[in-house]
Amino acid sequence: MNRSVITIDDLTNDEIDRLFNLADRYVSDLGEHPHSHRLLGKLDVAKGKIASTLFFEPSTRTKFSFEAAMFRLGGDILQTVDPRTNSSSKGESLADMVRVVQSYADLVILRHPREGAARVAAEYVDVPVINAGDGSHEHPTQTLCDLYTLRRERKSLTGLNVLLCGDLKNGRTVHSLVYALARFGARIVTAPAKGLELPPHVSDRLQSEYHCVALTSKDIALPDDVDMVFVPLRDEKIRGLPDNVDVLYVTPNQPHKLALIPDFNLSVHFDTVTTAVKEIDVIYGTRLQTERLAGNSGTGDYPVIDKAFLDKRGYTNAQVLHPLPRVKELGYDLDKDPRGAYFKQTAYGVPVRMALLAALLQIEPVLETRGSETHYFRNYSCDDGLMCSNERCISRDENEGKHLKPKFWIVNPAQQSFLPEMPLTVRCMYCEYDYKPSAIGRKSSRQYNVETSLWDQIESEDLVVFCDFAQAQHQGYNLVDPSVLTSARG
Amino acid sequence: MNRSVITIDDLTNDEIDRLFNLADRYVSDLGEHPHSHRLLGKLDVAKGKIASTLFFEPSTRTKFSFEAAMFRLGGDILQTVDPRTNSSSKGESLADMVRVVQSYADLVILRHPREGAARVAAEYVDVPVINAGDGSHEHPTQTLCDLYTLRRERKSLTGLNVLLCGDLKNGRTVHSLVYALARFGARIVTAPAKGLELPPHVSDRLQSEYHCVALTSKDIALPDDVDMVFVPLRDEKIRGLPDNVDVLYVTPNQPHKLALIPDFNLSVHFDTVTTAVKEIDVIYGTRLQTERLAGNSGTGDYPVIDKAFLDKRGYTNAQVLHPLPRVKELGYDLDKDPRGAYFKQTAYGVPVRMALLAALLQIEPVLETRGSETHYFRNYSCDDGLMCSNERCISRDENEGKHLKPKFWIVNPAQQSFLPEMPLTVRCMYCEYDYKPSAIGRKSSRQYNVETSLWDQIESEDLVVFCDFAQAQHQGYNLVDPSVLTSARG
Amino acid sequence: MNRSVITIDDLTNDEIDRLFNLADRYVSDLGEHPHSHRLLGKLDVAKGKIASTLFFEPSTRTKFSFEAAMFRLGGDILQTVDPRTNSSSKGESLADMVRVVQSYADLVILRHPREGAARVAAEYVDVPVINAGDGSHEHPTQTLCDLYTLRRERKSLTGLNVLLCGDLKNGRTVHSLVYALARFGARIVTAPAKGLELPPHVSDRLQSEYHCVALTSKDIALPDDVDMVFVPLRDEKIRGLPDNVDVLYVTPNQPHKLALIPDFNLSVHFDTVTTAVKEIDVIYGTRLQTERLAGNSGTGDYPVIDKAFLDKRGYTNAQVLHPLPRVKELGYDLDKDPRGAYFKQTAYGVPVRMALLAALLQIEPVLETRGSETHYFRNYSCDDGLMCSNERCISRDENEGKHLKPKFWIVNPAQQSFLPEMPLTVRCMYCEYDYKPSAIGRKSSRQYNVETSLWDQIESEDLVVFCDFAQAQHQGYNLVDPSVLTSARG
Repeated sequence: MNRSVITIDDLTNDEIDRLFNLADRYVSDLGEHPHSHRLLGKLDVAKGKIASTLFFEPSTRTKFSFEAAMFRLGGDILQTVDPRTNSSSKGESLADMVRVVQSYADLVILRHPREGAARVAAEYVDVPVINAGDGSHEHPTQTLCDLYTLRRERKSLTGLNVLLCGDLKNGRTVHSLVYALARFGARIVTAPAKGLELPPHVSDRLQSEYHCVALTSKDIALPDDVDMVFVPLRDEKIRGLPDNVDVLYVTPNQPHKLALIPDFNLSVHFDTVTTAVKEIDVIYGTRLQTERLAGNSGTGDYPVIDKAFLDKRGYTNAQVLHPLPRVKELGYDLDKDPRGAYFKQTAYGVPVRMALLAALLQIEPVLETRGSETHYFRNYSCDDGLMCSNERCISRDENEGKHLKPKFWIVNPAQQSFLPEMPLTVRCMYCEYDYKPSAIGRKSSRQYNVETSLWDQIESEDLVVFCDFAQAQHQGYNLVDPSVLTSARG
Repeated sequence: MNRSVITIDDLTNDEIDRLFNLADRYVSDLGEHPHSHRLLGKLDVAKGKIASTLFFEPSTRTKFSFEAAMFRLGGDILQTVDPRTNSSSKGESLADMVRVVQSYADLVILRHPREGAARVAAEYVDVPVINAGDGSHEHPTQTLCDLYTLRRERKSLTGLNVLLCGDLKNGRTVHSLVYALARFGARIVTAPAKGLELPPHVSDRLQSEYHCVALTSKDIALPDDVDMVFVPLRDEKIRGLPDNVDVLYVTPNQPHKLALIPDFNLSVHFDTVTTAVKEIDVIYGTRLQTERLAGNSGTGDYPVIDKAFLDKRGYTNAQVLHPLPRVKELGYDLDKDPRGAYFKQTAYGVPVRMALLAALLQIEPVLETRGSETHYFRNYSCDDGLMCSNERCISRDENEGKHLKPKFWIVNPAQQSFLPEMPLTVRCMYCEYDYKPSAIGRKSSRQYNVETSLWDQIESEDLVVFCDFAQAQHQGYNLVDPSVLTSARG
Repeated sequence: MNRSVITIDDLTNDEIDRLFNLADRYVSDLGEHPHSHRLLGKLDVAKGKIASTLFFEPSTRTKFSFEAAMFRLGGDILQTVDPRTNSSSKGESLADMVRVVQSYADLVILRHPREGAARVAAEYVDVPVINAGDGSHEHPTQTLCDLYTLRRERKSLTGLNVLLCGDLKNGRTVHSLVYALARFGARIVTAPAKGLELPPHVSDRLQSEYHCVALTSKDIALPDDVDMVFVPLRDEKIRGLPDNVDVLYVTPNQPHKLALIPDFNLSVHFDTVTTAVKEIDVIYGTRLQTERLAGNSGTGDYPVIDKAFLDKRGYTNAQVLHPLPRVKELGYDLDKDPRGAYFKQTAYGVPVRMALLAALLQIEPVLETRGSETHYFRNYSCDDGLMCSNERCISRDENEGKHLKPKFWIVNPAQQSFLPEMPLTVRCMYCEYDYKPSAIGRKSSRQYNVETSLWDQIESEDLVVFCDFAQAQHQGYNLVDPSVLTSARG
């Protein structure tokens, strides 16, 4: 049984810790160049192993990083040479392509323009698949790289104060990073460019799935450009809390949101938050995506991280990370400043990817036999033609459509007896795009209603989900009262 | 003296057998993954050898297959990275390019859009050349792969009943496969899409050069979609025949074609043929080439191989092969069916290509010092400007025209005293395109006539061949009577 | 401290000699194929070293040559796969890109369309950089290859008579070769196509910096198509001269140019020159660059080197070199002629590049710790916005402009007390483009004048250089008399 890494959530915290330990070991075994931080020499632990960099979109840095990692492990590389023509130019599906490639390579590193492509690849092959970027969905090894840099430079991720700057709206890789930081107990301070704030679904998920409390200027005094602060419940300052605490609210102002466990009132220490905002350990800049600035008033509002910025804000010891390439949002004057850690961050991509390759190729016993499982979600596979509404999803691709069946998670929390009924929310299993269907029904009785919050009163195997009521009508379902729908099968 | 493999006919049956034995040995030495059938680990027999994948057209699967084979042997790869710009963009001839590349690489694997390109490359270099596809001419390692899959799955090729489906007209790789199957004694049943039947020159060549008897529904009852059946004379069922038998005809209906040896009447066992059509061992599907369907009534007529097709026809034990990629002509429901052997076929490309590389690099003593020779053809090299009429031929390329002299085989059978006089047929030595010139002449007397069947009454060194009589006139030749032309030199 | 090779002048003659000795050793250690001259097998001296072929322009032969060299040394290669998309498509600067790549690779081999790009790369990284072609600026390993072929075939470069044919105007690689030949004491005979003569700045530099005497048909009888002859002062025939002689003139006609040391009259032996023109050892052809022939009367005038040419001119023993690819200027009939050395020249690229890679990776002690220094030039770095006037210069690129500061050499000779005052000439440190500014000034007094020959009467740190007087005015400088400008600081 092979493991794949499609999103950062495919790895548990323990597995990530062990990966980083292995990366540390590679650094110390091979040695690194004092300035460029590149590793030196090679091992032969992957001799006879072939990895394929199957890139359907151009890339130099990601591709080089993986290939250098594979070479330093002693393995070989099969690489695609023409991103534009390898794809579906002959009408071939990705599923077919990767099954062919697994005849040649022991591991597939996939970059693809379609969101969810890597998940599809992993479903079809016996070899491990690493997602090296699927559209704007995920790029988990970038996140691993970011986390490793923090751990290596700051010893521990827990309790770190991380300032995120720039475009927090569009890059899903930023969202992955945010979730991962929360998982490891870092505090997150957001300073977005105007109009490019973290989207509500991300801040919601940070609270509901990653157990953070979110604070805004309504709750606590914040600098002008700081939008929100997220404090993970497992924060060291509040470690004394019982394990089952799911949310908390803040004392300085009045409680601003319902606690999920109403009889359990917690406080975030006021000074924990104000300190977090002042004593920033790490500043993470994001790329100015010129093509998405149309609605903005030029690039004038975009925060530029440079020496002046650090000095003005008193971020004396903060380290500056950036996934590169930069445009204008990161000053050249930090290149030789000890706080500028972005080239180091790039260099750490090699030991991290070596560790991941070695783990997935089962050269080193890092990973559990089974991956992390999402236990509280319900699986929903749709026979009646409901398709993912994300047009960039791999399941919407013409070639893949021939063989790929849309599949979804139901992402409403399972134990919600004490909560108001929530409308049904589904998440595409491939691209992880969330949306709220407009109708539910019963297959057995061919009945439907638009009250989607009743979804869990219908047995799994009998549940049908519709984009909208027209689709239900079109498929011959009859509108009935909610009570009729939930009462019994046909 | 280095050997090259430009067409499957460059290898004798014995050499192919030894290649397959070597491939078997590699599979058992390295081991294979139980599901993906990819080989594991690597040897070091090709250490220090460099192969170049010189691809002037995009390819992922063929390129990966060769490169994986080279890596598993322990060698290195020089690869072209931009198929569109390496070629003649600076006005460089292929002959120059490959002579440069042989300074760097010990073996050249060439894919080129021009038919005959690989033959030209092989003429100019001292290193072995493998044709990895030259336009729609040849792709011999695909054929080797197909044959190896059949041998490995079915033990022997002799007497196998092979059903060929789909587009049998346009793909020359299908034609190569057909000839190779005949060479190894398989029976061939054709079920083409409407309008995409095997061209007459292929079925003729199957009979005249590969010693098959061709049966149609005029000869024997055949299923609706079956067009022809070819039974090789070396078929086990008729092994008792003398070695010199060249053709035979069938008893159930009346004799449908002249036997080449009129005083020797043979019979194909009627039940051999009817059984061949029913008890299909292998179904070989070909890709639906959408761009060539213009003249057809859509794709509706194109045979689709899926479970329903196999069940309907009672092909319980048939294995399904397909060169991939597929479009719509091969059902996804066969992917996990034990009869679907096309992914295995892809995987077998690695040991087969390892064996070929090892043989050509003289790592293993598989090949004879000299290749197979075509003894009964006469060589014709043309000084007077007759050029190949195939516009896709490498000899018609502007850059190659500077140095390349058109060369032809005369393909009329040598011992034809008992045959009616056949019009002269020549075959381009590069692209193997056959055509019938309209005039012949004598250099010494500057005379010509349009009666081309008299070609063999003129001495080799005195023979001139013209596309048409205008060309002869233009070059200053005079029209004379046939008897004058053949009587004596000028 | 790492060394880089951006121009051939980054290597001293001694270093080049040691490189060639090492290349000889590699040839004899590995052995070479008798016909293709490719090396056989591999060493393992570069095991664990990774070189990156970072090619922003398409190339097959140069890339293959480097990669074959790296493989034969036992190292690995990271290669770019899509020259058009790796570059600044995301607005990334080259400086950033190479700093990222040095995290992965131990050495960078760069090809880039911008002139001076490789120099910029070398300034930003800690790993060695090899210039594999930067626009039409330099391609030093081609020059090394040419020199090595001459040395290997002719034992010594000193006193060789080299005929250069074709386009001597546009190819800067030809200019590099010319300088290098002069450095090693070869005599240079030019036979350019009409209108494509060696530019005056090159023949000037050959005299002023490389100590050649230049002869034309005004000085000595020359064949019709021969334009100039350059005889290096270190020519063996005139070795008896004192070391400090800088120029000389010729006896047969009257002295045609001022000797730089007026009280020291020298003679080039008349027969040395006439023999040089007759007894050509090496003919170096250059590619017909069709795109640059617009102004010419077609290709009719372009000299074609073939057997007829050699025979007509009596070049019985001359060897023919050509950097390839050829178009029409090099006959196919020399391919199998022993005088045609161009394929050998290509093959020698591998041992030469192996030697260079091994030297730069410090596998072999070939290079001095510090490179060759240009002692008599003065450095001029411009704060006031004077930019390089070569639009193809890397410093003019939009992305690089963000961080790159224009820098120049002042190239007027240092000891010029006995010379008339020369107008100021500056050379861009990146692209080495020379030009003559129109005004100079003093920062301290904010004064300027157009008499640029006075530049050396202003202290280095106070000197300002302007493209033209408008720029000076625009920046607030006041026009003053020359004597005021030079008299004292403000």
